[in-house]
Order: sequence, then C-alpha cells, then structure tokens
Amino acid sequence: MIVVVKKKSTDNEVRNLIKWIEAQSVRVDIFDGVHKTVLGLNGDTSHMDIDAVISFDIVDSVKRIQEPYKLANRNFHPGDTVVDINGVLLGGGNFQIIAGPCSVESKEQMSLVASTVKKLGAGLLRGGAFKPRTSPYSFQGLEGEGIKYLLEARAQSDMPIVTELMSMEDIKHFEHVDVIQVGARNMQNFSMLKELGKLNKPVLLKRGLANTLDELLMSAEYIMAGGNKNVILCERGIRTFETATRNTLDISAVPILKRRSHLPVIVDPSHASGMSELVESLSLAAVAAGADGIMVEVHNDPRKALCDGAQSLGFEQFERFMKNVAKLRQIIPGIYES
Amino acid sequence: MIVVVKKKSTDNEVRNLIKWIEAQSVRVDIFDGVHKTVLGLNGDTSHMDIDAVISFDIVDSVKRIQEPYKLANRNFHPGDTVVDINGVLLGGGNFQIIAGPCSVESKEQMSLVASTVKKLGAGLLRGGAFKPRTSPYSFQGLEGEGIKYLLEARAQSDMPIVTELMSMEDIKHFEHVDVIQVGARNMQNFSMLKELGKLNKPVLLKRGLANTLDELLMSAEYIMAGGNKNVILCERGIRTFETATRNTLDISAVPILKRRSHLPVIVDPSHASGMSELVESLSLAAVAAGADGIMVEVHNDPRKALCDGAQSLGFEQFERFMKNVAKLRQIIPGIYES
Amino acid sequence: MIVVVKKKSTDNEVRNLIKWIEAQSVRVDIFDGVHKTVLGLNGDTSHMDIDAVISFDIVDSVKRIQEPYKLANRNFHPGDTVVDINGVLLGGGNFQIIAGPCSVESKEQMSLVASTVKKLGAGLLRGGAFKPRTSPYSFQGLEGEGIKYLLEARAQSDMPIVTELMSMEDIKHFEHVDVIQVGARNMQNFSMLKELGKLNKPVLLKRGLANTLDELLMSAEYIMAGGNKNVILCERGIRTFETATRNTLDISAVPILKRRSHLPVIVDPSHASGMSELVESLSLAAVAAGADGIMVEVHNDPRKALCDGAQSLGFEQFERFMKNVAKLRQIIPGIYES
Amino acid sequence: MIVVVKKKSTDNEVRNLIKWIEAQSVRVDIFDGVHKTVLGLNGDTSHMDIDAVISFDIVDSVKRIQEPYKLANRNFHPGDTVVDINGVLLGGGNFQIIAGPCSVESKEQMSLVASTVKKLGAGLLRGGAFKPRTSPYSFQGLEGEGIKYLLEARAQSDMPIVTELMSMEDIKHFEHVDVIQVGARNMQNFSMLKELGKLNKPVLLKRGLANTLDELLMSAEYIMAGGNKNVILCERGIRTFETATRNTLDISAVPILKRRSHLPVIVDPSHASGMSELVESLSLAAVAAGADGIMVEVHNDPRKALCDGAQSLGFEQFERFMKNVAKLRQIIPGIYES
Repeated sequence: MIVVVKKKSTDNEVRNLIKWIEAQSVRVDIFDGVHKTVLGLNGDTSHMDIDAVISFDIVDSVKRIQEPYKLANRNFHPGDTVVDINGVLLGGGNFQIIAGPCSVESKEQMSLVASTVKKLGAGLLRGGAFKPRTSPYSFQGLEGEGIKYLLEARAQSDMPIVTELMSMEDIKHFEHVDVIQVGARNMQNFSMLKELGKLNKPVLLKRGLANTLDELLMSAEYIMAGGNKNVILCERGIRTFETATRNTLDISAVPILKRRSHLPVIVDPSHASGMSELVESLSLAAVAAGADGIMVEVHNDPRKALCDGAQSLGFEQFERFMKNVAKLRQIIPGIYES
Repeated sequence: MIVVVKKKSTDNEVRNLIKWIEAQSVRVDIFDGVHKTVLGLNGDTSHMDIDAVISFDIVDSVKRIQEPYKLANRNFHPGDTVVDINGVLLGGGNFQIIAGPCSVESKEQMSLVASTVKKLGAGLLRGGAFKPRTSPYSFQGLEGEGIKYLLEARAQSDMPIVTELMSMEDIKHFEHVDVIQVGARNMQNFSMLKELGKLNKPVLLKRGLANTLDELLMSAEYIMAGGNKNVILCERGIRTFETATRNTLDISAVPILKRRSHLPVIVDPSHASGMSELVESLSLAAVAAGADGIMVEVHNDPRKALCDGAQSLGFEQFERFMKNVAKLRQIIPGIYES
Repeated sequence: MIVVVKKKSTDNEVRNLIKWIEAQSVRVDIFDGVHKTVLGLNGDTSHMDIDAVISFDIVDSVKRIQEPYKLANRNFHPGDTVVDINGVLLGGGNFQIIAGPCSVESKEQMSLVASTVKKLGAGLLRGGAFKPRTSPYSFQGLEGEGIKYLLEARAQSDMPIVTELMSMEDIKHFEHVDVIQVGARNMQNFSMLKELGKLNKPVLLKRGLANTLDELLMSAEYIMAGGNKNVILCERGIRTFETATRNTLDISAVPILKRRSHLPVIVDPSHASGMSELVESLSLAAVAAGADGIMVEVHNDPRKALCDGAQSLGFEQFERFMKNVAKLRQIIPGIYES
Repeated sequence: MIVVVKKKSTDNEVRNLIKWIEAQSVRVDIFDGVHKTVLGLNGDTSHMDIDAVISFDIVDSVKRIQEPYKLANRNFHPGDTVVDINGVLLGGGNFQIIAGPCSVESKEQMSLVASTVKKLGAGLLRGGAFKPRTSPYSFQGLEGEGIKYLLEARAQSDMPIVTELMSMEDIKHFEHVDVIQVGARNMQNFSMLKELGKLNKPVLLKRGLANTLDELLMSAEYIMAGGNKNVILCERGIRTFETATRNTLDISAVPILKRRSHLPVIVDPSHASGMSELVESLSLAAVAAGADGIMVEVHNDPRKALCDGAQSLGFEQFERFMKNVAKLRQIIPGIYES
C-alpha cells in the first residue's frame, strides 16, 4: 500500500500516522519528495482498512498494490482449485454443464428435465425452489416442497443439485443439497456469506448486478475466511445501459477471474441475456474465453415456464447446444494449455 | 398493461393467451391492427407477473401502464404518510435531521455525540452496530454491545434511534430500537423484507447502489404487503462512472419519489458523497428539492473514526450545517405549498 | 407505434392528436379501454419523432414496435451485406483480421508492421494518424504525415488501410484511404456522419462508450441515409463500473447486431480490454459468438509504443493469436450454418 | 505522479525508465521498498502521457497526484473567473438565468419568447438552430435561418444569445452569436475544441452523458490551451440506470467543479430530467448547491414544441420558477460566503 501524505502535515502528525500503521504489523518506508511525503507499506496489508487510513486528516490518498483478498488470490495459491461435488469435479480442466429449469414447478417436471439433461450430457442439475422476485406479488417458488422435488430428481438421476438459498432461516432444507447458490442480489449479504463459510458444502457465488470483479473476490474471501474453500465464481451479466439484453455478459470476467484467482469460473448465459436465442452463442464465447462451466436454463415447455420462460432452452435447443459446446471443447483446452 | 401479440399468431393461440389472462381477474380488450394485435388489460394488474406474460411465444412485448406497486403508490393513497417514531414525526411537512457516527465505538462516544447533536437540533440519533464491510478483515462493528450503547444514549438523550439490521438472526437485539435501517446492499434481500413486514416498527429503507426508484418502491411494497406501513425511503447515492465522489447523489429521486409515493423521503449526503466538505451543499440541495429529512454522519473526532471518517462532520461543522439547513427550511415549505 | 392517451383527455383533444398523426401518412386505429384510450399506428413510423408525440399534453406514454432504423434493418434487407474493400471482402461469411499499431510512428515502423501482419494472415492494415486524446498535452498523432506513411505501407504490402478521421476538415488527406474509421467519441457526431454518407467509401463505425446498440444502428442509418451503404459496425467495449479492464467488451453485441442488422460486425478486443494479455481470449470469444472480423493492435515494440502500448500485441504474440483464431474459425462457421 | 515498478525489474531497466522520465523535465525520487520500487515524480507532470508510462513493461501501475489540467485548475488560479458576455456577467457571484426554446421555430416565436423571458428576469436567450438528433429522420433544426431569427430576437430584446455549434463547417453563421454551446455529444470532439480555443468568444461546454468531471475539465483545458479562457461548464445530467428521468442530474458536480476549477458552473435541469414538472425543484437544488446559473427551456406553447416539449416550461410556469429562484437566491450567497 502506498500512502500519500499532504504536504502541509507536521512531522508529529506523520509520526503518529506511522505509529498507527506499524501497530498493525506492517513496516513503513518513508519517501520524502519536494512536494509531498509518500509512505510505502511493506508486509501483509490485506487486513488493513483503507477507509481508516483515508480518515486521517493528513492523508491525501491511498493506493493499494496488493489485492485485499488473500485466500482467493492466485498469487498465493497458484494451482487451480478443483471443487469435488460429490464426485463431479469442477475446475482445473474439469468442465461441467449445469442445467435445469429456472423454477422447480412439480415432481414430474423435475424428473423429466433431470433425466433428459443427464442423457444429453449435463453434469449437474439446477432448479430454483426459493425465488428472488422483484415483486411481492410474483410467484415466490415452491420453497421446501421444491427442494423435496429436487432431491427426488437427484436420487433418480444421480446428478448433484445446485439451488439458491435466500436466507439462513431456510438452511434446514439444504442438508442434502450439493451446491448452495448465492444469488446476485445476495453477493454482498455479508451475514449470510459468513454463515456459509462455516459449512462444508460448495457455494456457487453469483456476481452482483453492479459489482466489480474485485468485490466478487472479496465476497468469496468472506466465505473462505470462515473455512469453506469450495467456492465457484459465476459471471451472470451486469447492469449496463444496453436494453437489447436483460443484462450484459462481461466475457472478460472469465480471463480476469482466472488470472486473479484459483477458483473455478462459470458463466450463466440465460440470466446474462434473458433471451433463449442468445444462449448458444454466448455459451460458445464463454467456452472460447476459457470458462470452467456453463449454467443454463432448460425447461420441458419454455412457453409455460412459471418464470423466465423467455430465456429457457427447450430440449431440442439444449441438444443442439450440447453438441456445439462439445465441438468447441475439443479444441479449446489445447489452445489454453499451449 | 398493454400486450403486443406477434402478427403470425393463430386465432387459437391468441384465445389461449386471453383465457390465461382473464383467469387472473383481469378484463381483456382486443384491438386488431393491420400488422399486429394489441391486448389492453383492464383491472388490477399489479399482481401480474410480467415475465410470465412475456414467456408466451406469441407475445412480442409488454408495456406496463399501471405501476406494479400499490400500497406504496400515491395514486391510491394521495395523502402523505407521517411516520410516528415514538413521538418524533417524519413526513407530511415534518422535517427531521438524523445524526450520529457511522459506527458506534464506545459508550462515552455515543453519550457525547447524542447530547451534542440533540442540543444542536437533531431529532433522531443514528449509529452503526452491525456494519456491512466489503472486506472480512475490516472492523465489523460492536454488534450487540453497540446496540447497548445506543440504547443507553437513547435513554440519556431521549432521542429515538436508527440502526442497521444485517440479518434476521440479529433481530433479538433490536427490540428497543426505534427505526430499523435496511442498508443499500440489502434493498433486495427479499427474505428480510418479508420478515420486516411482520413487525410493528418503522423501517428506513436505503436505495441500492444500482437500483431504480421503481425497484426501491417495489422493495417498500414487500414490507408493506406484510402489514408494516411505516416505511421511510432513503436516497443515499447511486453508482456511476464519476470518481470524484464515492457515489452520485440522485437529487431527482426526491421529487420523483414524492410524486410516485406517499412515503417520507430522506437523503443521506454522507454516503452519497463520501466527503465531509460536500455534506452541507448537498443537504441544502436536498432541502431545496423537498426532502423530508437528512441523515448525516457526525463524529466527535472524525480523524479517529473507525470507519468512514472522511465523510463525517465534526461538531463545529455540524453546528454550521444545522444553522444553514434551518435558514433554508424557513422558505422552502412556503415554496412547495404555494 | 402504440400511443397511450391519458384518461382525462377530451374527445376533441384526442381527435386533434389523431389528425396530427395522420398528417404524417400513418393510419391510426383507436382502442377504447375502460381506463384509457390506446392508439395503434399503422404504416411506416420510422420517420416519426417520438419526442414530438410525447410532447402532446394528453399523451401518457409511447411504445415503439417498429425499430426506428430502416436501411440498417435486417427485417427489410434479409441478406448479409458484404463490404468490398478494394478487393478484400468483409461480411457474409468473409472473415478478416485488421491489424496494426495504435499510432503511426514512422515510415519504417509502418513498413515493418505491414509486411509482418500481412505475412501472418491479416487482411487489412490499421494505424492512427489523427489521434483522439483526452489531454491536449498528449501526443496527437502524426496527422497528414502519418497518412502518408500508411499509404506507403499500403503500396508496399498491397493491403487496404483503415484509419480514423476526427474532423471533416481533414478529409483531404483521406482520398486514398480505403476505410474511414469513426471513433467511439464521434459515434454521435451527426454532422460528420451526414458528410460521410455522401462519400463512396466504406466507413468503420465504432460504438460509443455509453451508447446502446440501437443508437449505434441509428448512427449507421445516418450514414446510409446519405447514400453510403458500406458501413462496418464495431464493438469496442463500453464503460461499466468494472476497473479490471479499461472497458467492458459487450460480447452479446455480436449476435444482437447480426440479428437486427445485415451489416458486418467486428470486434476490437484491444480497446475493449486495454490489456494485451486479454486480447487472444476475447478474440476467440468474439469468433465463437459469430463476429465477421477482429481489429487488433500490433506493434513492433509494444514497450516503446507512443500510445496504448499496454494493449498491443508484439509480433510473436500476434503469430500465436493468428494460429488460434484460425483453429477456431475451422469449426465456427459450420456451427452457425447448421 | 507515483510510478510503481514491478519487483522483478533489473537495475538497468529502472535506470532507462528514469532517464526517459527526466527527459521530460521532471525530477525523479527513488524509494526502494522490500517488495517493490516506487518512483516519485516532482515537477509539472500535467503534460505527461500516463499511457506512455504504463506501456513500459516494468511499470506495475501509476497514480496521478497532480490533476492533469492546469489552466482550468483552481489550485493555479484561485480567483473565480467572471465571463463577460457582451456586458452580462456570469460567475464570481454573478448569477444568470439562460432561457428559451429547445429549437428555434420561427421569427415570431423567438420574438415572443425573448421579450417574455427578458421581462421575467432572464439574462441570456437560448435557442437551438442546429439540433443533434439521434435519428436522421427527425427535425434537424432551422440551421442558418434559425440563427438569423435568434439574432433578430437578440437585437430586439438586447439579450446576448447562446446557441449550439455542431460542426466547424457551420462557424460562418456564428459571427454575431454571443456564446457558442458545445453539446454533450461533442464534449470530446477534440478537433472542434481545438478550433474553439482559437476564437475570442465564450464557450458553454456541456458534460458528456457518460463522462467524469475530470474529463469535462480536460475538455475545457483543450479550449483554454488554445488561448480562449472564457469557458462556462454545464452539468446537464448523466446516463444512469434510472428510467424515471431522462438523465440523472449529478448535483454534486456543482460543488466539485467549483472546488476544482475557477470557471463558472451552470446547470441545465430541462435536459437532466426531461420533465417540465421537475425543472423547478431541480433548479432550486442547483441554486442551493451553489450554481452560477441555470439554463432552462421555455416555450410559448410547450404542447406544440417541435422537439422536447415535454421538458419545456410555459410562460406561467416560468414566471413562478423565476419568483422562487429569486427567493432562494436572497439567502444562498450569504450561506456560501459565511
């Protein structure tokens, strides 16, 4: 961390600031220029509170050199993390398709979707039981009942399941869920992240609609700091001024996250675009950019989906999608390993 | 709601769509144009799920005419809501200053700040005990202990208190808190909003960093739909590309929210700007735009604040601030009532 | 276009509005609902001024059904436009790499870069002679001298050249330039777009930093309305809150633009990311998403580039890049044609 | 400027970098830390190209301490600039209202609007003759004819006029125009800014839709670097995700620009909001925040305006507006001077 001190500061004020910094086990080098004094902080500054430094009256500005995340940081953990989801591996060269409906609607639906997507090559099953809806008057999901249907489909198809948790008060339903999803709107629900850090279960963490990649990594750090190292990062589109798509898929998130972190990175083209017609081309782009997996909405009858039908693939579309993703995967790992 | 149907649709498909809509107690008028069919929905469509309508294959696009919020909507409740906070009134011409430190730091600090801001004219006391911090390594607040100090300052100064709740699991500490604050990052924590709807306690709801005003009103609707009508809306700055300020105060939020809703609207210039030097001019702007109150950070020693010291006013600055706000308040209500 | 009329309007006011609309050769169908009147406009409304309609006191809101662009619209011109750049074809299955330095620096540099990128497979040569720089104190380009070096490299290498025009006052230098580039900051320089519409020379139109895809298509429409149909659309990243990359590549722009328009769509990963390390993975993503070409910065010595060296590929990186793009191109067209 | 050098750099590489920097008349202080080397640059770095510094392979990152603008910078010119517009003063305590229609429509209209707004207290007359329109099919303004009507209204009313220039090719019409307006879309039309720097005529420079305040000041610097010191800065709303208003008025721009620069700062609430009902409350906010003037759209018959009627005040609304602005102005300067 580099701290620039205002030029009018007294020696005494600067000494006090240095004393305060050194009390946090960080060594300070002083650099006296003509117009200003610059302090160089050496040591682990990831635990330092940048706001606290700025709040000193004599501090002009602060520049972080070291990233504020440590456990999620590839610099400290060069090898790829491989998340083992009850036998299904994700990350470090293990690519997975996570498929299923936006909302769990019935036992029969889940059974049908699960067997179909499994047959076509998906590795994990998704489905929403607790649904974050902007309006209190919209369908809120089948909740506990929905989890039950998911678990039945899991037993039948032998695919691990991914489903969203919206509140720790519902955690009782998640005992047999394989991967807990944290939705975009909860990416900075720090209380929940702390609790998830205490579990021994993979967490799929979605990027918030207006959050930076470093903020996403800080949220991963919250979970990891609690002891849970099995975090999967998910780019699902950010809010921009573009109106042609529901959100804007930030494809650069894939190579950036993979450079900065060792955690697996997947892409959700269904929420990113909000349009089923775009799902395939965005998925191919994500594969080409080096993603470790794709999470995609598939519905037995998209026209009748209780939510987000406009972005769901039907079975035929999903079959074509799987074929083309597979074609691309044949050459992509070779490109990135060379 | 206006539903535009694709021109290639069959009569049968259109009939099915209309049947589905009418099943929701909404009357449908059909308008057949040369190039398209338009359906006009009459009745209360606020409970209708716009995504479900779009998911019909034959639907080209949908346009809401009626706002999707009802309880928060001024059209249905023309008179201003006045929130009674244990005797301190907010809204409907009742203007309040809410002042106090970003974080509760100690018993002595809260006592000193409370007596000082009360003497200078503040109506409510604020202070954070549970703190949402981007980094797990930053100071997270005094938590339950902080609430205790707040309640002691409340008893001593006889000012109602406002403090943030980050998780329903902490609600046990909030029994004697007067106003529960929902932070920007929890604006769409729908599970929490639902729970707060069951309480009989005012909720101060902050706008999310990248949320629209209609999304803020939908979140208020969540609380109100549960039965709790005492919601205070708070504009606290949105994320934009500007870097000179921490966030961008959306001053238009004040007149827009007051037009669309009957709920009181306050402004938080401290978080909006992140700079104590801007707090006064932004507050004067907020008063001039018609805000019902200002929530401002005041600290006994801003240089030593444990968080956000850079945006806190010292006591002298706060005294000047109160004098100038009062000067403006002498003429503003007259302008808006004329 | 659908026009929703306020319910309190008088019959006379509605009649006047209809008369005004019909005077623009558009037929109006009236739909009287219980709460409102809706007007359906039939005919070519692309020339109608939506602001003028809204300015009627009795108009509640307006919804466009037809896109406001016509010449750029795929609905009216289903076949792909193929731009013939003095023998080099772009669009309609013809894929091209446009390569060269950010700035033209010297005759020798351009000669070296041109022969190298040609040998490695590039189809067009790029290089900036007139440079848009945020600061008046930054290097502004070699201007006319730079164009001369470009033309010499063109003669030597027999590659068509692409270079940016910043003002019509400089057009005299562009007589022998093959493709005129309009930079992101000039995307809505409508005076310039009109002038370019009168020329008989391809225009490469870059998307503005905060513009929507429909705004980009409207700017293409400006050029085409003047008679010049050879417009190439270029996605070069938009401004978002993300700071890890200079801009955010909107990869969805590729499939969306190709759906909405028949014009060729290329991607500039160098400006989108600002980082040479990201150029290859973003280019692969663009190819996978269906782009018709890539415009990439290549420099003989990126460390010494006079501008934007951080985002330029060196020759070795470019060689690898070309090899991998070619590998992907072997399978991609097959996927999109199937 | 602080330059952070990567730790793996050789002494020779660092020496070369320092030599390159010192060749630009800037002194370099070296600070060797354990993990990195930091260079502190002393002297005038406003002319240094930050991109060129970053392009050195060994540079990790760069942090500006000094603002890159100098002529527009209050640090170097502490006193307020007062722009003398043919006798009407703006800035330094001189507050002005600039009023008139969005578009010049006819001689009679301009005569009527000019005499009315003058009588009600406006200091300058505005009106668009060259209109930037998103669609080539929208009304583009009366152009030269419009300027003629403006000049006639100027002669009749003895008010200086402000009107927009869209291209230097039209400058011949602007000989007798008092203030040249640069629209938001041309804020970074650097070629035009350079030409305007050579004129001896005040320039009203509007902030771009997605530009930062420092970018606005850099554009002012372009004009001033050419010799023209009479620049008026105008905040007119930025693009955000909010849809309730056309743009979002960034009210903080007023105090920030006035801190960073000595140039006058005005606000355009008509374009910022796009709604006539919001113009008064946003103008009061701007006055309260310390603006030097307001530019407001006034039309003799807003319902029939050829563009942007929805945001124009009628004469009665404008009369009320002027009365309330005056009421606020009676107390505001006193607050800011105290």
